[in-house]
Amino acid sequence: MEATAEEVDRVVRAAHSVRDALADRTARAAFLRAAAELLEKSGPHIIEAADAETALGPARLTGELARTAAQLRAFAEVVDEGAYLDIRIDHEDGSRTPPWPDLRRWKIPLGVIAVYAASNFPLAFSVPGGDTASALAAGCPVVVKAHPGHPATSELCVSVLRRAAARTGLPEDVVTLVHGFDAGVELVRHPLVSAAGFTGSVRGGRALFDAAAARPAPIPFHGELGSLNPVVVTEAAAAERAPEIGAGLGASMTLGVGQFCTKPGLVLAPSGDTGDRLVKALTETVSSAGSGVMLDHRMRDAFLAGVRERAALPDVETPVTPGAGGEHTVSAGFLTVPAAALTAEGPHDALLEECFGPVTVIARYGSEDEVAAVLARLPGNLTATLQTATEGDDPEAAGLLAALTPLAGRILVNGWPTGVAVAPAQHHGGPYPATTSPSTSVGATAIERWLRPVTYQNTPDPLLPPELREANPLDLPRRVDGRRA
Amino acid sequence: MEATAEEVDRVVRAAHSVRDALADRTARAAFLRAAAELLEKSGPHIIEAADAETALGPARLTGELARTAAQLRAFAEVVDEGAYLDIRIDHEDGSRTPPWPDLRRWKIPLGVIAVYAASNFPLAFSVPGGDTASALAAGCPVVVKAHPGHPATSELCVSVLRRAAARTGLPEDVVTLVHGFDAGVELVRHPLVSAAGFTGSVRGGRALFDAAAARPAPIPFHGELGSLNPVVVTEAAAAERAPEIGAGLGASMTLGVGQFCTKPGLVLAPSGDTGDRLVKALTETVSSAGSGVMLDHRMRDAFLAGVRERAALPDVETPVTPGAGGEHTVSAGFLTVPAAALTAEGPHDALLEECFGPVTVIARYGSEDEVAAVLARLPGNLTATLQTATEGDDPEAAGLLAALTPLAGRILVNGWPTGVAVAPAQHHGGPYPATTSPSTSVGATAIERWLRPVTYQNTPDPLLPPELREANPLDLPRRVDGRRA
Repeated sequence: MEATAEEVDRVVRAAHSVRDALADRTARAAFLRAAAELLEKSGPHIIEAADAETALGPARLTGELARTAAQLRAFAEVVDEGAYLDIRIDHEDGSRTPPWPDLRRWKIPLGVIAVYAASNFPLAFSVPGGDTASALAAGCPVVVKAHPGHPATSELCVSVLRRAAARTGLPEDVVTLVHGFDAGVELVRHPLVSAAGFTGSVRGGRALFDAAAARPAPIPFHGELGSLNPVVVTEAAAAERAPEIGAGLGASMTLGVGQFCTKPGLVLAPSGDTGDRLVKALTETVSSAGSGVMLDHRMRDAFLAGVRERAALPDVETPVTPGAGGEHTVSAGFLTVPAAALTAEGPHDALLEECFGPVTVIARYGSEDEVAAVLARLPGNLTATLQTATEGDDPEAAGLLAALTPLAGRILVNGWPTGVAVAPAQHHGGPYPATTSPSTSVGATAIERWLRPVTYQNTPDPLLPPELREANPLDLPRRVDGRRA
Repeated sequence: MEATAEEVDRVVRAAHSVRDALADRTARAAFLRAAAELLEKSGPHIIEAADAETALGPARLTGELARTAAQLRAFAEVVDEGAYLDIRIDHEDGSRTPPWPDLRRWKIPLGVIAVYAASNFPLAFSVPGGDTASALAAGCPVVVKAHPGHPATSELCVSVLRRAAARTGLPEDVVTLVHGFDAGVELVRHPLVSAAGFTGSVRGGRALFDAAAARPAPIPFHGELGSLNPVVVTEAAAAERAPEIGAGLGASMTLGVGQFCTKPGLVLAPSGDTGDRLVKALTETVSSAGSGVMLDHRMRDAFLAGVRERAALPDVETPVTPGAGGEHTVSAGFLTVPAAALTAEGPHDALLEECFGPVTVIARYGSEDEVAAVLARLPGNLTATLQTATEGDDPEAAGLLAALTPLAGRILVNGWPTGVAVAPAQHHGGPYPATTSPSTSVGATAIERWLRPVTYQNTPDPLLPPELREANPLDLPRRVDGRRA
């Protein structure tokens, strides 16, 4: 089933040739809504296929399908409203030196987008997921590179999307699917591919990022690669509710067998008695979590190897040892380490790298300086979380929030980072390696990745796209002469 | 004067250490206005220095200084209004499955920005230029790499900016200057540099782009590299006003001795009598343009070599031969070639590359198909221009506008691309190699290059930045629950 270079060329050219069909915003919105509806109608088949391929289970997959359909509809609303076009009009102004011409700016689709599907979300971050939905919403044809973990699910989903296109009068080739590692590399190098979206590992993502940057004409590569998702628990927070924090952390880090990109992977907790109580609560929660099946054997092996390597480091303890469950399963656990071991370069740096699966690291700190020193050494993250006292004043809160903000794209207070709402104000991205660009792959602004601005100068009204005409026939939100209109 | 690696490290660290001082929007706006004022007060000295170093002449430099000061003030207004923060607030919504938390998104400064100054605009695209102004407006400290063509002007300008910082209570190190090729490379590789802005050649810009992408943590590189700025003259337009178009083209391509990045470098004109009249008018205008001094000898040599190479191609004619004027000067000219020579790969492809200086290429077409074939082979551009009939219907206009739009970031009808208004709706960028990212270096949205979004989840009001607090104490434009508020 792996696509040859010729096949990749053919699907990219097919996608490119139908790009104009996506120019009509009304048709695009109808297409996205039809795709959501068909996805729901085909839900049982898709969930069955995805469960067989990923072992994620029908409950989780049912939720993911609902989320994926909702995301398609959310982007239809974004397209309808049209604020994403970011229309700005400056009328001619002879009083300026030199005089200003009439300028009308909006955003147009970039062209064919390559989408690289994720292993851990066979729907929401794969064929019908956020990258595809936002690219189609922007007016860009999409070629998806299927994840090898769920090829049949991918085929089912692309057939749903293509049927939805046909039902709304669009060519089916606005979305196509290719399989195979080499096909993925061909795709990012293809001259008619204009940008790429990726969710996956640092290694794979970086290789594709490098290929995108090395092209004769480089293209934007929006990759979500990896994230440690640090959590800081203040002394006051631990004193106030160590059991609750321990239980919440245990639930978040084991959710989905620890295979969420927002899993909290490093927790800075106080070293004294309050921190001990947190560790105790975490021990109870994690011990009772039961074992789970990971996405595939490669990931299971990587998890077990990663845990072994980390647990063997000096001064690392394992109150609950993560490891092999049955033949296919793994059991959750966590490690503890003195935070002082992480304040300078050394072998413990392995603990500052993401370990995919149900494990987290509790770094016990003795002082605020230790916390600051560890935070200063962290790479970029999708999320950073502060657990602070909810009653009374927590003297550390403001300072820690300021220290966490440079580290991540989403900052949480007294919550847990797993669970990413598909909401207009969402941001799912962060400093490298969380993402390779300052963009988001979730939420309304994800559409911005697939657009570029164009300004028309002194262009007669009849030649302008309707969106930019003086009378605003489509009643779109615009900024006119520097003000919102 | 060339900075060593240690000196680059020192200025970057100094810039990084003062970044928090730029967090206050009011202070930043005051700083930008003070910089504009001091720049104007120091105008005579700066213009004298710049003219001695660039030979651009006091008239042009006086205009450029006014433009640069206006640009600083325009960004102060952008900062004051705060729409660029793109604030989005979604209130908690328990009716969603799963429930939405409270999410509040805005944009924060990326960090220290490296700015690479241009040769051809010693002010507006150099030390106090658009990249610096927009980065400071975003709240980012700036380290400028001076262009070797105007080191003294650069020193004068940075001292003005640093004095303006001090006068408004900001540390002087929010802007610093380094000299030297190697220093420029060190700068883009420095771990504390978060993004770069560049205006210059394809060769230099691509090398820095590659270095930015090859970092352990890659950074955004917003470079403006090169542009042919194609013009299409329809048969009807030439029939209507060949003399006017020829004269306008001649004025635009010789403006500033042809050293504008928006110089029209390729003109598709009809092959018959109407096109002959256009060539005749162009001949008259260009013949009387007189000779001019280019920015430096290296550019003069490159211009002369580029013209020689192109003029020697088969079927190329030179109605006015561009070339050496006096010892330091060059005279303007233009080449003609049958458009058919450009429709397929071959030696004439040299005519599809930018040649910096007062020369343009008139490609005479015999059919609409030839025009389409040439346009399909063009690389990305900053601008693309359509000359169409102003009276009555021009049957080619709509189709040509659609064919030009994918090629550029600014589309002009019946105008000339030289002259880039610093206006909110301006877009100065385009597909590679025009720019290395879908961003603009001129206009209000240039600030977007130096920001990244951050979302706060369930964060208590007192811990939020004032811009995101529920009561909107700073009265900023925001989107709340998916709608403009």
